Amino acid sequence: MTISTLQKSINERLDEHYEEMVEIRRHLHMNPELSFQEEETAAFIASYYDKLHIPTRTQVGGHGVLAFIEGTSPGPTIALRADFDALPIHDEKEVPYKSTKPGVMHACGHDGHTATLLVLAKILNEHRDQLKGKIVLIHQHAEEYAPGGAKPMIEDGCLDGVDVIFGTHLWSPEPCGTVLYKSGNFMAAADRFSIRVQGKGGHGAQPHLTKDAVLIGSQIVANLQQVVARKVNPVDSAVVSVGGFVAENAFNVIADSAVLTGTARSFEESARHTIEREIEQVVNGVCAMHDAGYTYEYVRGYPAVKNHPKPTEFIADIAKQTDGVIEVKEAETQMGGEDFAYYLQHVPGTFFYTGAMPENSDDAYPHHHPKFDINEKAMPVAAKVLASAVLSYDE
Amino acid sequence: MTISTLQKSINERLDEHYEEMVEIRRHLHMNPELSFQEEETAAFIASYYDKLHIPTRTQVGGHGVLAFIEGTSPGPTIALRADFDALPIHDEKEVPYKSTKPGVMHACGHDGHTATLLVLAKILNEHRDQLKGKIVLIHQHAEEYAPGGAKPMIEDGCLDGVDVIFGTHLWSPEPCGTVLYKSGNFMAAADRFSIRVQGKGGHGAQPHLTKDAVLIGSQIVANLQQVVARKVNPVDSAVVSVGGFVAENAFNVIADSAVLTGTARSFEESARHTIEREIEQVVNGVCAMHDAGYTYEYVRGYPAVKNHPKPTEFIADIAKQTDGVIEVKEAETQMGGEDFAYYLQHVPGTFFYTGAMPENSDDAYPHHHPKFDINEKAMPVAAKVLASAVLSYDE
Amino acid sequence: MTISTLQKSINERLDEHYEEMVEIRRHLHMNPELSFQEEETAAFIASYYDKLHIPTRTQVGGHGVLAFIEGTSPGPTIALRADFDALPIHDEKEVPYKSTKPGVMHACGHDGHTATLLVLAKILNEHRDQLKGKIVLIHQHAEEYAPGGAKPMIEDGCLDGVDVIFGTHLWSPEPCGTVLYKSGNFMAAADRFSIRVQGKGGHGAQPHLTKDAVLIGSQIVANLQQVVARKVNPVDSAVVSVGGFVAENAFNVIADSAVLTGTARSFEESARHTIEREIEQVVNGVCAMHDAGYTYEYVRGYPAVKNHPKPTEFIADIAKQTDGVIEVKEAETQMGGEDFAYYLQHVPGTFFYTGAMPENSDDAYPHHHPKFDINEKAMPVAAKVLASAVLSYDE
Amino acid sequence: MTISTLQKSINERLDEHYEEMVEIRRHLHMNPELSFQEEETAAFIASYYDKLHIPTRTQVGGHGVLAFIEGTSPGPTIALRADFDALPIHDEKEVPYKSTKPGVMHACGHDGHTATLLVLAKILNEHRDQLKGKIVLIHQHAEEYAPGGAKPMIEDGCLDGVDVIFGTHLWSPEPCGTVLYKSGNFMAAADRFSIRVQGKGGHGAQPHLTKDAVLIGSQIVANLQQVVARKVNPVDSAVVSVGGFVAENAFNVIADSAVLTGTARSFEESARHTIEREIEQVVNGVCAMHDAGYTYEYVRGYPAVKNHPKPTEFIADIAKQTDGVIEVKEAETQMGGEDFAYYLQHVPGTFFYTGAMPENSDDAYPHHHPKFDINEKAMPVAAKVLASAVLSYDE
Repeated sequence: MTISTLQKSINERLDEHYEEMVEIRRHLHMNPELSFQEEETAAFIASYYDKLHIPTRTQVGGHGVLAFIEGTSPGPTIALRADFDALPIHDEKEVPYKSTKPGVMHACGHDGHTATLLVLAKILNEHRDQLKGKIVLIHQHAEEYAPGGAKPMIEDGCLDGVDVIFGTHLWSPEPCGTVLYKSGNFMAAADRFSIRVQGKGGHGAQPHLTKDAVLIGSQIVANLQQVVARKVNPVDSAVVSVGGFVAENAFNVIADSAVLTGTARSFEESARHTIEREIEQVVNGVCAMHDAGYTYEYVRGYPAVKNHPKPTEFIADIAKQTDGVIEVKEAETQMGGEDFAYYLQHVPGTFFYTGAMPENSDDAYPHHHPKFDINEKAMPVAAKVLASAVLSYDE
Repeated sequence: MTISTLQKSINERLDEHYEEMVEIRRHLHMNPELSFQEEETAAFIASYYDKLHIPTRTQVGGHGVLAFIEGTSPGPTIALRADFDALPIHDEKEVPYKSTKPGVMHACGHDGHTATLLVLAKILNEHRDQLKGKIVLIHQHAEEYAPGGAKPMIEDGCLDGVDVIFGTHLWSPEPCGTVLYKSGNFMAAADRFSIRVQGKGGHGAQPHLTKDAVLIGSQIVANLQQVVARKVNPVDSAVVSVGGFVAENAFNVIADSAVLTGTARSFEESARHTIEREIEQVVNGVCAMHDAGYTYEYVRGYPAVKNHPKPTEFIADIAKQTDGVIEVKEAETQMGGEDFAYYLQHVPGTFFYTGAMPENSDDAYPHHHPKFDINEKAMPVAAKVLASAVLSYDE
Repeated sequence: MTISTLQKSINERLDEHYEEMVEIRRHLHMNPELSFQEEETAAFIASYYDKLHIPTRTQVGGHGVLAFIEGTSPGPTIALRADFDALPIHDEKEVPYKSTKPGVMHACGHDGHTATLLVLAKILNEHRDQLKGKIVLIHQHAEEYAPGGAKPMIEDGCLDGVDVIFGTHLWSPEPCGTVLYKSGNFMAAADRFSIRVQGKGGHGAQPHLTKDAVLIGSQIVANLQQVVARKVNPVDSAVVSVGGFVAENAFNVIADSAVLTGTARSFEESARHTIEREIEQVVNGVCAMHDAGYTYEYVRGYPAVKNHPKPTEFIADIAKQTDGVIEVKEAETQMGGEDFAYYLQHVPGTFFYTGAMPENSDDAYPHHHPKFDINEKAMPVAAKVLASAVLSYDE
Repeated sequence: MTISTLQKSINERLDEHYEEMVEIRRHLHMNPELSFQEEETAAFIASYYDKLHIPTRTQVGGHGVLAFIEGTSPGPTIALRADFDALPIHDEKEVPYKSTKPGVMHACGHDGHTATLLVLAKILNEHRDQLKGKIVLIHQHAEEYAPGGAKPMIEDGCLDGVDVIFGTHLWSPEPCGTVLYKSGNFMAAADRFSIRVQGKGGHGAQPHLTKDAVLIGSQIVANLQQVVARKVNPVDSAVVSVGGFVAENAFNVIADSAVLTGTARSFEESARHTIEREIEQVVNGVCAMHDAGYTYEYVRGYPAVKNHPKPTEFIADIAKQTDGVIEVKEAETQMGGEDFAYYLQHVPGTFFYTGAMPENSDDAYPHHHPKFDINEKAMPVAAKVLASAVLSYDE
């Protein structure tokens, strides 16, 4: 059987199992679990493999599950990753498969990722005797909440022996049939910071006896603009945004303290380091102007997702030839974060988007929206692209 | 009887009635009423005069009460004013005369003002046949809450025929026996303002798609400093303080709106007008930089208390000769407000402080503090100074 | 002879010597000398007294000249002060008495001050046998240029035994016949400062490799507004103005350094100290934000002229009764400086303005203007007020 | 003759003509001409071709010169570009070939570009009968001074029929033997702007009567940071730098006006448009805060150099196989500008750097430095890479 014959057979079987994918996805959608609390979801995944006699390793770096399919001839070890945690959002959709847990929802499509990978694994396993090399199916917990599940799973060996890794995200803003790839900087490092200005309160009529925390906080925000505008290398993309500024006081009271919270995005480690240092330099300088105190906390989220050029070109090329794919295009750089970044720090690979805009929709609800939904027909598309990757990849 | 003999007699009678003063003050302290809600206090005052057969006019411009004592020989008409409203503060003192109303408290000494004026009126009335001219006792409601009671009482005629007005404030930061006077600018006009910045919210990673209300608000606060520093005539005193800055958002969300609230103090009408206009000029300019919207409200409180030079020198002089007064000194200009200001816009007069620091206290609780208290022995001191003023004032 | 007869006689003699005053003033006007270089002027003054056999002391604290007139009965020692230096301004008036020295000009009226005092001394000396006490005529050099002549003259004893001092300034913005007095804060302390920001220059396209001195300087100026707006007690008048900002560079070069120069005005020593300290606090804080260096120099000019209340009221009262005086009014506080301030730190006294607006002029050239001139008829007015002061002052 | 044999022959001939290259380069170095004034240089170039009987077109879009070499078999039309203008910099090198014109200097290596292209053309012409297609040698005037020579040469037809264009810059910061390529954004659009703030001057002690141009200018610079930090899409590189800030005044005078000059860099047209608009939005908003006026001028320089991916990969590949090339590496994005950008808007092509660091130098003088020099041995390297391109390029 040539690759294309094999591919054709796998694609047909995936199509035949579309209903199962939907069923799994909806089961997960109705039973979402928050990051780091995904016990039942992990058990569901392991049980699925157990029934198929596919060997697994559970509790990998937490609730992570690995499954292994070994081909019958030598070849590369290819990892495919799907995440499975949900979000602290209340499901506001009116659909039969609505979340049954108040305040918890698969509002990012991880239910679809898991259903896709499970059924794909089943079908690949059927064709195991025609496969080369080895496939590692990485079912990752806790993508939504830093420090995330990827890091502990790697530390627990999930990438041992892996030659290349692929992952995809079902992506509601683009129509079904679209594949979006991007070599290099794809998704940003997303950090957060908080600043607490400790001034000295007093009466609004006596500023000279105070250290006005509202003025200090305001000068910090105003002067923070220099971090991106002057301190980061202009060829590096970066954002520093203060989202919250809270100093609640009567109108005639000068603020004793103010709390600022914000987010920083970057792609290069040097830029990230510059941002972390220069924010404090501004805070420190402004507070020095007033002889005021502060606390500053900078918490690193996931690093930037930097897709490797060759696996990315590879995915772009094979996607173009994959059944169900209508358009393959270069993605724009995204300022949002993903802990897939950690895998790419260890092995070559690429992360790509699979269009999943609901049908009859010109403008889908964005990810993390209480009415978010995906087009389930995107699942076999994603499965077929990943299957092609497994079949065609050659070191 | 010479003035000094008469004065001596009055002072003795005041000392004899010290316990009554304390009793009245404590009764009021236990039964405080908020501004514009002082029905029982007004009834109490009117009833006190009724029992003495001193003619009154009630419901003057609201809950205001006037009482009239006519001398037997010609002379000036002198008004004495005491305010009688309380504050929305919960009494935290542990004393037998603690407020009986949760969340309402005489935390500024108006109870003492009223007790002082009532007993002083009683004693002056005893000596009515030796008095010249006429005394108008102005018991004013609602000093603590703009637009205040002074203005409607004036509109309702409380100053009709009045030649001069005196008022005093029991003042806890200075020891008992001290009288503080100040010619000209004594207490500031106290206005408040609020600014609502209407930006356009969005994701913290995409500032270019937003109009960042935290940045806009911060630039407003930073640039507002120019109002006092550059726009108001430097020989005029002025303050512009932003007390509250609230934009509550998740750290990774760019603020849609921000609310700033503050206070402005000034003495001259021209400075006040400049401040009101220039705050908006800053808000308008900063919002224009971002193509953002805003609402701006500037609410005028009481005007500045501007003591007339001659009545002020008069009070300073007679205070020096008054029994119980230990020190007479010039007060510093105060940035706080008082609606006594309105009376001084219509007739000559002066407002002065009478030291009322509790005994055995190096550092009294400030006015408006939940543990505020006065030294009750300051009441006869205040009464004697006002009595001297009544006896000695000659147009 | 009663005081009023004596006064009348002196006034008549002053009127008779009006031409001499004009002659002296024009001689000085044509022969101006810069501050600290007034050798010929000092010699001219001393010679004038020598001819009248009035005793003098020369080279007092520099080019200062003292002359002494002793009365025949006991009384206070009264000092009258006139300054005699000129300015580095080129005379652009077209008058016969135009300055003969290019670039040097009596553009502030000190020539008139000197002519007034010399002729007044001559006339007082004529009436010496009817005078009480002693008169010290202080001819002061170097008023226009800090550190000024007043300080060294005081150190050299010019106030020894002096009970009170009077001085006046011919004042072109007000009409002849006007006397302006002001008790307390009359003229501000006038200091200057300079800030040199030492950043790190570079190419305009590479801000991250530089420390941008234009940005640093701009943030300093913007943040300096807080000094007056928040740090100085709002009841104290103060100004901090940056007049010069110079960073000359090609448009595509990031500035290595920037120089800011400015002036600070205040009345209270505490405010002055606050300003000096808080400017540096801002400079230091902003430079810290950029890890940049700076030099900061704050040079104190003259202190504030604080007129003593009693001598000021005295001058206001006697001026009202003086021949030639049409209006006596309270002056506005002036933010300009005068080293008369030093005398008032040692002895009671007052400094007042004598209106000297040129005739047929609605809007005189301001002091220090190249076309500045005075109405010479103001000189006898000033002389008569000072004469009244000498005759009437009683400790 | 195979390509490689032909290549080898050409390379040998280039090496044999190294002395001629040096001679030409030094002649040009000693006789530099400013942009748009390059008459003699243009004549020199045309004359060189005339002697070789290579057809030319002169006065192309100004002083531009085109030369044409036609192969004997069909093939693509390939343009090679060298610029030939000098800079208004005074040559401070101590070398025999130092500029003979005071204040004019080849401080950017255009002399070397020209020498390289002339000798390369001569050698290619020798092998004309073995060449395919056509070679257009573009000798461009006025690269250093916007609006530059590329645009008028294109308008005058220099790219007519051209299929691809290559150009190189001798690059002193990198050692001889290095070739630097960069696909996509290589060199930034470089614009300049000037802002004149028209305030209202006055005395430093009277800010309330003025519109302080130093404060206004400073607030503009401080607030301008938001343009890059908040308004430009963070995935686009951009710089806005104010290089000059001039408001020269006495320390005690408030500035009437201030002049700010700066540069803006970007790669995307949308970012460039945003910058131009948002700078004015800041200027307008700050001036509105003070009711002040302004003029704003934004002058576009060259657009961004955006290398086409395929020709760039092609150059990188053939450079690796070229004699004399030691290292081929990806260049960093440069924020400096080049009018080669215009050619790339019309035809495919790429612009690359050829290392030219002087020998025995760890840290060469940068381009545009008065002591700038190149390693002349870089000329045959550049010539050989361009020759390979000509020989190997196939549409």
